[in-house]
Amino acid sequence: MRGADLLMRSIAQSGVETCFANPGTSEMHLVAALDAAPGVRPVLTLHEGVASGAADGWARVTARPASTLLHLGPGLSNALSNLHNARRAASPVVNIVGDHASYHLANDPPLASDISALAGVVSSWVGTVPDAPSMARGGSEAVVAAMGPPGAISTLIVPADAAWGEVGGTEGEGALAGERERIVTANQGAASRRGAPVAPRRVEGAAEALASGEPAVILVGGRAMHDAAVENASRIAAATGARLCCTPFTARAHRGAGSVAVERLPYFPEMVVQMLAGVRHLILVDAPPPVAFFAYPGLPGALVPAGCAVHTLAEGGDDVEGALEALAQACSAAGREPVRVPRAIPPVASGALTAAALAQTVAAVLPEGAIVCDEAITNRFTCMAATAGALPHDWFCLTGGSLGAGMPMALGASLAAPGRRVVNLQADGSAMYTPQALWSFAREGVDVTTVILANHRYRILDVELHRLQLTGAERGRGLTNLSRPLLDFVQLANGLGVPASRVTTTEGLAAAMRESFATPGPRLIEAEMVE
Amino acid sequence: MRGADLLMRSIAQSGVETCFANPGTSEMHLVAALDAAPGVRPVLTLHEGVASGAADGWARVTARPASTLLHLGPGLSNALSNLHNARRAASPVVNIVGDHASYHLANDPPLASDISALAGVVSSWVGTVPDAPSMARGGSEAVVAAMGPPGAISTLIVPADAAWGEVGGTEGEGALAGERERIVTANQGAASRRGAPVAPRRVEGAAEALASGEPAVILVGGRAMHDAAVENASRIAAATGARLCCTPFTARAHRGAGSVAVERLPYFPEMVVQMLAGVRHLILVDAPPPVAFFAYPGLPGALVPAGCAVHTLAEGGDDVEGALEALAQACSAAGREPVRVPRAIPPVASGALTAAALAQTVAAVLPEGAIVCDEAITNRFTCMAATAGALPHDWFCLTGGSLGAGMPMALGASLAAPGRRVVNLQADGSAMYTPQALWSFAREGVDVTTVILANHRYRILDVELHRLQLTGAERGRGLTNLSRPLLDFVQLANGLGVPASRVTTTEGLAAAMRESFATPGPRLIEAEMVE
Repeated sequence: MRGADLLMRSIAQSGVETCFANPGTSEMHLVAALDAAPGVRPVLTLHEGVASGAADGWARVTARPASTLLHLGPGLSNALSNLHNARRAASPVVNIVGDHASYHLANDPPLASDISALAGVVSSWVGTVPDAPSMARGGSEAVVAAMGPPGAISTLIVPADAAWGEVGGTEGEGALAGERERIVTANQGAASRRGAPVAPRRVEGAAEALASGEPAVILVGGRAMHDAAVENASRIAAATGARLCCTPFTARAHRGAGSVAVERLPYFPEMVVQMLAGVRHLILVDAPPPVAFFAYPGLPGALVPAGCAVHTLAEGGDDVEGALEALAQACSAAGREPVRVPRAIPPVASGALTAAALAQTVAAVLPEGAIVCDEAITNRFTCMAATAGALPHDWFCLTGGSLGAGMPMALGASLAAPGRRVVNLQADGSAMYTPQALWSFAREGVDVTTVILANHRYRILDVELHRLQLTGAERGRGLTNLSRPLLDFVQLANGLGVPASRVTTTEGLAAAMRESFATPGPRLIEAEMVE
Repeated sequence: MRGADLLMRSIAQSGVETCFANPGTSEMHLVAALDAAPGVRPVLTLHEGVASGAADGWARVTARPASTLLHLGPGLSNALSNLHNARRAASPVVNIVGDHASYHLANDPPLASDISALAGVVSSWVGTVPDAPSMARGGSEAVVAAMGPPGAISTLIVPADAAWGEVGGTEGEGALAGERERIVTANQGAASRRGAPVAPRRVEGAAEALASGEPAVILVGGRAMHDAAVENASRIAAATGARLCCTPFTARAHRGAGSVAVERLPYFPEMVVQMLAGVRHLILVDAPPPVAFFAYPGLPGALVPAGCAVHTLAEGGDDVEGALEALAQACSAAGREPVRVPRAIPPVASGALTAAALAQTVAAVLPEGAIVCDEAITNRFTCMAATAGALPHDWFCLTGGSLGAGMPMALGASLAAPGRRVVNLQADGSAMYTPQALWSFAREGVDVTTVILANHRYRILDVELHRLQLTGAERGRGLTNLSRPLLDFVQLANGLGVPASRVTTTEGLAAAMRESFATPGPRLIEAEMVE
């Protein structure tokens, strides 16, 4: 067998099922090796940003890593933007980057660049495979490092000669068997996967703060948003009178009727300041202290109120679920019912597609079990508010602020969750960073409904120019306008193989969405918005 | 005035005329400052890869830098792929990357990442502006560093508080005046812009080698391909019996009837080996020693033949033109006529669009003074061969091998060369890396004719799988196929505002190209190829 076969079999036995690929010449042996690892399904993308964003979406559904297959430094460069989002989401992702043959790097061929430096910006683990026999180990190390907790980006750099190098059958099988043990150890019991137990004094400190009677906020993020963790957080809040809040951009939140009620911190810093005014204790659970997304002249960047004590109950590497369980016990909250969101499904709105009418319509038709991949940007708040009591669903936010995540994430989420409908709420400006995802939608036949929120401008920038009182800047304002020429998403989607239509009313939107939910495969709906 | 105004005025007075922009919130003051620097024309792109590729195209026409305006680490990440190509082309480019306010970085907001590390991979110069008054200096230093020679990438990181900070009128004007002097000094006389004079022993060494009577090749690249430099190289070759060759992927080559005849090194290493067999002296003029684009098992990576002496006459930072002038004198070649390419314009081919018929048709209709932006990949060789004796034109190659350069480069080249027709020979697979360029074509109304060479697969990868005898890899081969679904470039282009049509014959291609040449503005022609 070749080193490439060894690597593909190694990641397969480590639990990697999918490879989002945009390969080039230096990856040919890796590409061929996919035949040796039938457990790893290759998914072709036309741009590496689609591959990395899809791996993020896959990880948010499964909490396990997909791999990407990328072509040298430029391929990794194209993937970086969505790897940034994946890093902020603590999504496990294993990048496999083909490099030149090791002995060829000294010749500085045209495609050579510093892959390690690029990888280091987004990755918690970067490794270069020295030779073919080491491929088994490289693969499992990369997977284990990505798994965390917290989930992280691993980047494995694979020189072409390590991929094409021959490994004896016995040696190769032996290496794979050894790595199987490594994986079993790493995964041993739920305990190690849950993370490190938190020190009792952390639980005691949080319990004391919550017992003080002073205004307190429990701020959850990451894995504290899931299942038993968020239920215990809700019990604690109910028992102690604290408010339960979450970070503004959560990787995965279970929402809708019957879900645990959590207040979400707003985007603009002045609103966060207002919301947290008077709070004396902030209990952080897999969440960083609140900060402004951007600094503004005269506004604070760090948003913990003056005089507020910060208590970190658990961080990303900790046993987040266990910490909340212990805190619930310490607060005598274990027997309580979590506070749940009542069902509140609005009717389809009527008339033109204002932001509010669009959001209400989405809430009216959202099917049970949907996964919402949200890159709605300025329409995000309205859409989240309207769907709060909709049928139960999961919501994936743009965690890192890097545009172009919505459609790629929808690809990966849909492949990871067959049978569920993915609803991709997609601003028009951000859609144009990785529109190539549409082609992979069609190729894979995924059940993704993309709703383009078409306002024909970078509306967030108009808002920011206004906030900064820069609206006099004529040439600057020209840079926020997307209407010259008008982007026609129906033709764009059709050109990439996805059926599409344009709607201008709420009734049209509801009908198109319902038709899409009843029809397997992808569909794009361009929703022409009015101000 | 604000720091942002100071920066924009500084780059304007340093000679930067264009800013290819995809700004975000952290760049709002920079965007507004475009009003303060009417000499800098903003060009909006929908993706940063379009911006950086356009800056490369601009630089290849003008030998001066354009600027890009990018949003934090993710914006720079998206630009990296085409910056890699620009670096390999020695194109001067000035990146302006907006960052968080300096005091906000410690809060690790979601969009924070290591911008310097990213910039360092492609840039010869990276600087962070410390405060508003330093903006004048930051701008001119970045421009001077980019100008070279050799041309290079500069990346200026601009914290938001340096951009919004106020600078007193007198202080600001004073800083700008001081920087004007710096620019004047840097540009003083053609001499300094030509680069460092080469040591006489280099000229003597090359002259001796050429006088030896042993087989010799003069290998030119970069600026040695231009004007008087390549003419002198040709005179020297004619006088000494050496062969005049150029690197496989030149940034800008003047070609066609009456241009200086230069043999081009081929792509595949075994062909280079064959071409250079028996050569005893290799004279390098702004060209690296020949290397394989990729290494292959059993083939050499470094392609200088055994027993061949390498003589470096001039490198990128040297006075390349002066060195060739001196060598021409040393070889008593100064009075000779350069060897020129005879006019040989074929008729339009007839029938289906085979690779040869397509290339012949392009050669038949190519207008005088055209700029060819070539990302034809597997059709490159055929197209270059067919157009060798066509009407005089300039040819821009994919210098760094990073896909997605063709259309963005065409945008920048066209804006830099109004009145000339840009012909973008574009493979279909590579077109899908930065198709957003089409929208900017329409917005700017540029005279770009994009011919999509549609073979519906990553043909180069099919070739490589074949070369590596990996054609048995069934799942791997699935990753080279782009026909499921079929990419429809006509709808894609229309969706982005560019008129488009599909042709299936040489006659149809010729008619569509001629119609496009006679019509101002962009046009896309999808050429359906047959094997």
